[in-house]
Amino acid sequence: MTKKIYEHEVDEPVDIFMLIKGADVRKAKNNKPYIAFTFQDKSGQIDGKFWDAKEDEIERFQAGTVVKVTGKREVYQNNPQLRITKLRPIQAGEPYTPDMFMERAPLRAEEMVDEINETLFEITNAPINRIVRHILNKYHKDFFEFPAAKRHHHAFPGGLGFHTISMLRLAKTIVRDYPGIDPSLLYGGVILHDIGKTIELTGSMATEYTLKGNLIGHIVLMDEEITKACETLKINEDNESVILLKHVVLAHHGKLEFGSPVLAHVMEAEIIHHLDMLDASINMIDTALQRTEEGTFSERIFGLGNRTFYKPKGQTKPQED
Amino acid sequence: MTKKIYEHEVDEPVDIFMLIKGADVRKAKNNKPYIAFTFQDKSGQIDGKFWDAKEDEIERFQAGTVVKVTGKREVYQNNPQLRITKLRPIQAGEPYTPDMFMERAPLRAEEMVDEINETLFEITNAPINRIVRHILNKYHKDFFEFPAAKRHHHAFPGGLGFHTISMLRLAKTIVRDYPGIDPSLLYGGVILHDIGKTIELTGSMATEYTLKGNLIGHIVLMDEEITKACETLKINEDNESVILLKHVVLAHHGKLEFGSPVLAHVMEAEIIHHLDMLDASINMIDTALQRTEEGTFSERIFGLGNRTFYKPKGQTKPQED
Amino acid sequence: MTKKIYEHEVDEPVDIFMLIKGADVRKAKNNKPYIAFTFQDKSGQIDGKFWDAKEDEIERFQAGTVVKVTGKREVYQNNPQLRITKLRPIQAGEPYTPDMFMERAPLRAEEMVDEINETLFEITNAPINRIVRHILNKYHKDFFEFPAAKRHHHAFPGGLGFHTISMLRLAKTIVRDYPGIDPSLLYGGVILHDIGKTIELTGSMATEYTLKGNLIGHIVLMDEEITKACETLKINEDNESVILLKHVVLAHHGKLEFGSPVLAHVMEAEIIHHLDMLDASINMIDTALQRTEEGTFSERIFGLGNRTFYKPKGQTKPQED
Amino acid sequence: MTKKIYEHEVDEPVDIFMLIKGADVRKAKNNKPYIAFTFQDKSGQIDGKFWDAKEDEIERFQAGTVVKVTGKREVYQNNPQLRITKLRPIQAGEPYTPDMFMERAPLRAEEMVDEINETLFEITNAPINRIVRHILNKYHKDFFEFPAAKRHHHAFPGGLGFHTISMLRLAKTIVRDYPGIDPSLLYGGVILHDIGKTIELTGSMATEYTLKGNLIGHIVLMDEEITKACETLKINEDNESVILLKHVVLAHHGKLEFGSPVLAHVMEAEIIHHLDMLDASINMIDTALQRTEEGTFSERIFGLGNRTFYKPKGQTKPQED
Amino acid sequence: MTKKIYEHEVDEPVDIFMLIKGADVRKAKNNKPYIAFTFQDKSGQIDGKFWDAKEDEIERFQAGTVVKVTGKREVYQNNPQLRITKLRPIQAGEPYTPDMFMERAPLRAEEMVDEINETLFEITNAPINRIVRHILNKYHKDFFEFPAAKRHHHAFPGGLGFHTISMLRLAKTIVRDYPGIDPSLLYGGVILHDIGKTIELTGSMATEYTLKGNLIGHIVLMDEEITKACETLKINEDNESVILLKHVVLAHHGKLEFGSPVLAHVMEAEIIHHLDMLDASINMIDTALQRTEEGTFSERIFGLGNRTFYKPKGQTKPQED
Amino acid sequence: MTKKIYEHEVDEPVDIFMLIKGADVRKAKNNKPYIAFTFQDKSGQIDGKFWDAKEDEIERFQAGTVVKVTGKREVYQNNPQLRITKLRPIQAGEPYTPDMFMERAPLRAEEMVDEINETLFEITNAPINRIVRHILNKYHKDFFEFPAAKRHHHAFPGGLGFHTISMLRLAKTIVRDYPGIDPSLLYGGVILHDIGKTIELTGSMATEYTLKGNLIGHIVLMDEEITKACETLKINEDNESVILLKHVVLAHHGKLEFGSPVLAHVMEAEIIHHLDMLDASINMIDTALQRTEEGTFSERIFGLGNRTFYKPKGQTKPQED
Repeated sequence: MTKKIYEHEVDEPVDIFMLIKGADVRKAKNNKPYIAFTFQDKSGQIDGKFWDAKEDEIERFQAGTVVKVTGKREVYQNNPQLRITKLRPIQAGEPYTPDMFMERAPLRAEEMVDEINETLFEITNAPINRIVRHILNKYHKDFFEFPAAKRHHHAFPGGLGFHTISMLRLAKTIVRDYPGIDPSLLYGGVILHDIGKTIELTGSMATEYTLKGNLIGHIVLMDEEITKACETLKINEDNESVILLKHVVLAHHGKLEFGSPVLAHVMEAEIIHHLDMLDASINMIDTALQRTEEGTFSERIFGLGNRTFYKPKGQTKPQED
Repeated sequence: MTKKIYEHEVDEPVDIFMLIKGADVRKAKNNKPYIAFTFQDKSGQIDGKFWDAKEDEIERFQAGTVVKVTGKREVYQNNPQLRITKLRPIQAGEPYTPDMFMERAPLRAEEMVDEINETLFEITNAPINRIVRHILNKYHKDFFEFPAAKRHHHAFPGGLGFHTISMLRLAKTIVRDYPGIDPSLLYGGVILHDIGKTIELTGSMATEYTLKGNLIGHIVLMDEEITKACETLKINEDNESVILLKHVVLAHHGKLEFGSPVLAHVMEAEIIHHLDMLDASINMIDTALQRTEEGTFSERIFGLGNRTFYKPKGQTKPQED
Repeated sequence: MTKKIYEHEVDEPVDIFMLIKGADVRKAKNNKPYIAFTFQDKSGQIDGKFWDAKEDEIERFQAGTVVKVTGKREVYQNNPQLRITKLRPIQAGEPYTPDMFMERAPLRAEEMVDEINETLFEITNAPINRIVRHILNKYHKDFFEFPAAKRHHHAFPGGLGFHTISMLRLAKTIVRDYPGIDPSLLYGGVILHDIGKTIELTGSMATEYTLKGNLIGHIVLMDEEITKACETLKINEDNESVILLKHVVLAHHGKLEFGSPVLAHVMEAEIIHHLDMLDASINMIDTALQRTEEGTFSERIFGLGNRTFYKPKGQTKPQED
Repeated sequence: MTKKIYEHEVDEPVDIFMLIKGADVRKAKNNKPYIAFTFQDKSGQIDGKFWDAKEDEIERFQAGTVVKVTGKREVYQNNPQLRITKLRPIQAGEPYTPDMFMERAPLRAEEMVDEINETLFEITNAPINRIVRHILNKYHKDFFEFPAAKRHHHAFPGGLGFHTISMLRLAKTIVRDYPGIDPSLLYGGVILHDIGKTIELTGSMATEYTLKGNLIGHIVLMDEEITKACETLKINEDNESVILLKHVVLAHHGKLEFGSPVLAHVMEAEIIHHLDMLDASINMIDTALQRTEEGTFSERIFGLGNRTFYKPKGQTKPQED
Repeated sequence: MTKKIYEHEVDEPVDIFMLIKGADVRKAKNNKPYIAFTFQDKSGQIDGKFWDAKEDEIERFQAGTVVKVTGKREVYQNNPQLRITKLRPIQAGEPYTPDMFMERAPLRAEEMVDEINETLFEITNAPINRIVRHILNKYHKDFFEFPAAKRHHHAFPGGLGFHTISMLRLAKTIVRDYPGIDPSLLYGGVILHDIGKTIELTGSMATEYTLKGNLIGHIVLMDEEITKACETLKINEDNESVILLKHVVLAHHGKLEFGSPVLAHVMEAEIIHHLDMLDASINMIDTALQRTEEGTFSERIFGLGNRTFYKPKGQTKPQED
Repeated sequence: MTKKIYEHEVDEPVDIFMLIKGADVRKAKNNKPYIAFTFQDKSGQIDGKFWDAKEDEIERFQAGTVVKVTGKREVYQNNPQLRITKLRPIQAGEPYTPDMFMERAPLRAEEMVDEINETLFEITNAPINRIVRHILNKYHKDFFEFPAAKRHHHAFPGGLGFHTISMLRLAKTIVRDYPGIDPSLLYGGVILHDIGKTIELTGSMATEYTLKGNLIGHIVLMDEEITKACETLKINEDNESVILLKHVVLAHHGKLEFGSPVLAHVMEAEIIHHLDMLDASINMIDTALQRTEEGTFSERIFGLGNRTFYKPKGQTKPQED
């Protein structure tokens, strides 16, 4: 009902409820602490600085709480910014909860679960099917809660599951249009390829890398999970299907310099790599264009070589719920 | 009815009709001329040397003619090779024509025409629609006759059209699954992206680069075609749709070092690049795996960084008509 | 008569007339607007910040107006900077016009026109001669008004023409010293190689990239111009001279990663690339050294891999007018 | 007693016993089969072709058998080559066994075992010690039998163990000279870093890559072994020492483009990488120089960027037993 | 006796004597001068800003003087920082001299001299021995006083000598463990490899590059020194040992892009390169880890590709005298 | 008078006198020796094989002798080749000397000497003038006899001097057209930049690299020469002109990866680099095009990234003497 942050024009006054996604306490030149906030509602995220923060304010305005913000939507050095003139916690009778402000995957978790489950029936290769089910069960909750990345693409709760679903849809087109693809290996690989992120990252709020994430990385972490699944399920690790499944996970970054320890040497590995790039690219550009005026170029997109993208005139803004 | 060349085992005697696709006359160490043949039938291509070639044989056995070859299918330094023991032209009553041996796109030209025509109705942007129709008309015949490349991928007659159709099918999945894509720009860009190859290359037999192909290249040649189409159709070249259409063609190689003079700065340009890579990769791997024994690695694929691809055991060979 | 900005020592008080070349209104930490100025006179450009700017000052002090500046020449983080203590518009009786402060090509437009015209007589190849004349006529005014780049080299009004003239002079030495060069192709290519910049850029003040500049680029834009010239002049585009002329323009950046869609495959293309590099490098170094004290290193030059250049002791500053 | 192959001068007649290390049957231009032999004795390996091979000769002269070769040591295109004039199997009473001709690690397996065992006492970190012992036990035999690489460095039986021992000796110098190094992590990492090669490669004769070697690679294979060891030994995989041990193995190739999925972010990982490079480089150069005349340059060394190495004059050839 | 700067906790008040290593006068936004200090004591270096500096303070607090600092140890954007609340010069009766605060090589100069001298006896090659002694004599004082680099590694007085000694110790292990190494060339090369830094850099305080350092570089400068030594000592420059000695110095950076004009083509050159990398890497990581809390990652290390390094938990801080 | 080799058509019989430039004895598959000849006359060089060479023929037909060759001009795998049917030495009364067949610089040595000498008068900087004269005197003979490279560009006797002269001519245009260039430094640098090749290479016949060439390289060798010249001439090596002169020599390859130990940081160094590239490129292309038919592409040019160059139609072959 209330207007969301990105439904305000640039330089329009703002007086809305938002969720604090990040709250970094720093020191200003004058040595007084200030809070560098990241606010969000369903229209996106925006940064804003809160100067001369007092002890109790620092205490009160932490990540995960909902606040009422008064100020102005501005642009600073090409990035959106919120000038804060007033900030207060929600009060009794203001019926807002954090999840009302969270940008989320366009699909609900249950829908994603259903779509994954349907796909499992198309994985007819027994060892692959058993391994995928085992790992899905083990990481079930996180799989539909985690973002697909710390930033870059699908960086919202549920992003990991949603990115996987999107790739699966493309994968099904591939299986339909090209003979000779092994659906078990392709779908199994797509489902597993990024689940290691649930070990690599800390979660969906204030997302950071874990020690394992930094020192081992999600690609090898998933290889370890397949290894352990074989031990538990008594599947022979020399089974060719197991080797192929590990391979498509290990090779999905496409190049050694992007962190894959092996290059793709199996057709399905090559396909998964391209589908990953395609889906991630569309998501990154789409996210950037949502904050871009028609007829202008977006901010630079780090994950796409710092390119900017042009938003053509006369293309209407995608609706939000 | 007759067994095709790749339906013979390695070291099995061969006694079949084939089409001469290439016939290069060279000189042996002993100074006598020999012919380096490339034969083909619908199961693929194979090289073979014909020693001590006489003048009349050189005359007779030229590219484009059908011959009866007796010999043995062999493997030389990891590549298939045909040892020729006898070679003769077809004789009266042997009812073979060259096109009976030509590997072709899995779709007939008419089917491709239909599929393209249907797509044209979905290009609702007027200038893009008019430009695409104009260029399709101009290069209609070649578009469905040319290969998509001299070698590498879809290097068979009709390959250019078939590669385009395959990308269009993927593109339609993208439009269905992702909001915010402009179908006119995406489909128009896919259709035009490689038509410049009809100017860059000499044709589907003994394919070489033309002077324009070498000195200008198919990417800029297509940009020129759009420029000329605008002149002819009286479309203002400052129209944003025209600029975007040129851009998606110019940017489709994805990187400057692959010959695109600009990087993709429009969502549809980025998508076309990925679809191109995806379809070309699948075709290259598929072609290589068709000549590979199960449980072994293929020959090196030049267009994929010289990687070899593994053909899993128990995966049955794709049928050929 | 007055001392110019770079004729002041570092830390010397300044009280002179200058032209405002750029005036960017930004917001300070304290939320008050300030103006980030770029001033210039014939000795060069210098930045300076004007704090706590009021509405009428922002209105009054825009790019293109002449002002009287009081302050001090300083150095901030190795870059020259002007500390502003007072700023006022010119008053009645102060006879200054913007062009009196503009750094310009060392040649007047008429001189450049003459030198180009003389060269046209040495382009004896008919199609090249006609195409070059046609395009020169079409872009005549801009050709002698535009800078050769947004920044980097020859970034002053008339820079495009002057850069072209400088290359032509070197080209004539080449023709004299090396047999086997085609003067028509070499001179024609030099004249056309950068004219696309008149479409790529917006002009000589507050220079920015146009949409065509960003999405097509000056290299392909010039190829389009040659294509259109052929249509207009009824020159067959398959004429080898036309193909060669397009090629030398397309290849002049020397490497694919610098935006040329083809590598040089013609002698004259290779030469034009080297002459371009040579003239641009000298101009960039020369510009940087003019602001450098003897016996010290210049600021970093972005267009030369961020290298700094040493200004030897005892080398006297080049005179200005 | 007999003179070894590399104790013959170039162009000196040869009449000695050697081991056939490789025997590749190929077809000559004239379609007759020949055998491309690799012979070896303790002075090194040498190639030689055996023309017009008959069926029984192909049968008889296989890899792993000892033969008497008569011929001449030659040089062909800068590489050593053996011209074969006569070849026969050993006869009754000729007391030669294959291992008498095999180039081997300069240390006997027992010596290597002892040196490793001593080092285990210096690994005082309990989880690391247990994991290392477990894996050493599991791969004990292969560890002292395998080469360290298919070709490149330490490509002889026992090379893997010997390369490891050499690195351990350097590692001990490091621990002695630099405070702050963790000996458990450093020694444990050195011992495990290449054991994955026993899974990656097929063995010490006619060494090839296994499917796991090609599709997973020895780096990740070793990470899997640590994972499984933890399962078996009930060591918590979240134990920091376990994570660090995995990390130093994963990072030891030093760069992503060399196949490490993570860069070194732990001091001991960085050290192991440098020791690996140092020991491998010395071994490669040493091997090449043993076949190089003083005052000349060696053959190109593939593993060192195809560089050649100069053998100074007056440096005496290293003795061989 | 007093607690050193890095023996204070973060946010602990500080009231200690320190040496001013650098004192850069800059201008604040409000146009008042401030001093950007680098302080140091034996526990390391720390930056701190001194606002509103008066003329006499600028005069008094220069690099090389000892001061009493009152303030707080803080962390600013991941880097250690000292907040200064009070600053005064030492007073009569405060017995502090600059060298009491200088981080130094862990070895005294005399120890280093002894260790170098011992090594000279192992350089038995006459020309190498004479050249090394000659150059050591010429640069004796600077060799034990200079840092090994302006920043990056061993950037403290005596660092050059200490880095050389550390490499020599590793070199002796190499000579012991690997046959076929020439100790004269290896030790001579190690000793000379970086002495050119005494010409390239200005000294150990406020270290900068000299003009020769910038325009010739320490690698070629050392080659010149060997050239001049030969002239003086009447050693024939065509002597192979001289050429080899020059080569190992010229090649020690290992790659052309790191400034070596030739790649290593001699075994000892390759070894020196690796020892240099190994010793420098350990020093850089060690320095960074000394300021890092256990269980966290260090600051980024520029000389190691901007990597951060993890300091494992439970590893005790290395003692300082 | 006689027709030269490249004045024959392809496949035209040949019966002319030529000089043997190279004569490599190799062994054929049948184990009989053959001679791989490189012949030359003033129209260029051509390879040809002489089968079944007898001992006395190997003795007689060595590099540097003139012979009468009967055979045919052919093309083998895109390279020109001479089929030899008869070969005999010159006989009494046949008045041919080797230098009558040698491709030479288009200028006689005396002309080059004159042109260099004139330039010396324009080097008014005393230290530079003295150093350049000293080094020119020392290497006078070789400077006008050596090629500029082993292969690649100006690979003929006198090529070094001629390449230098060509660059000097361009350099004079630069001095004329651009103010602010130091002629002494520019001309001095041009003259010295490649003289190190007289030490790096063995001479103009059967050119190879010397040990110094391989291990030090011509760039550093020239720096050593300047160092020694200063010692001899008692010029202070700290003189800025000396440092600059060394710098322009050291930096002339333009990039570290091309073997310059420093990047250009002085205007004249940057110019010399570009002139070197320009002159070398023209020479390489020109040489290749002389053997190329009009309307076709040349062989690949190694020194220009393996590019082929197109020879336009209707461009007449450059005349020779």
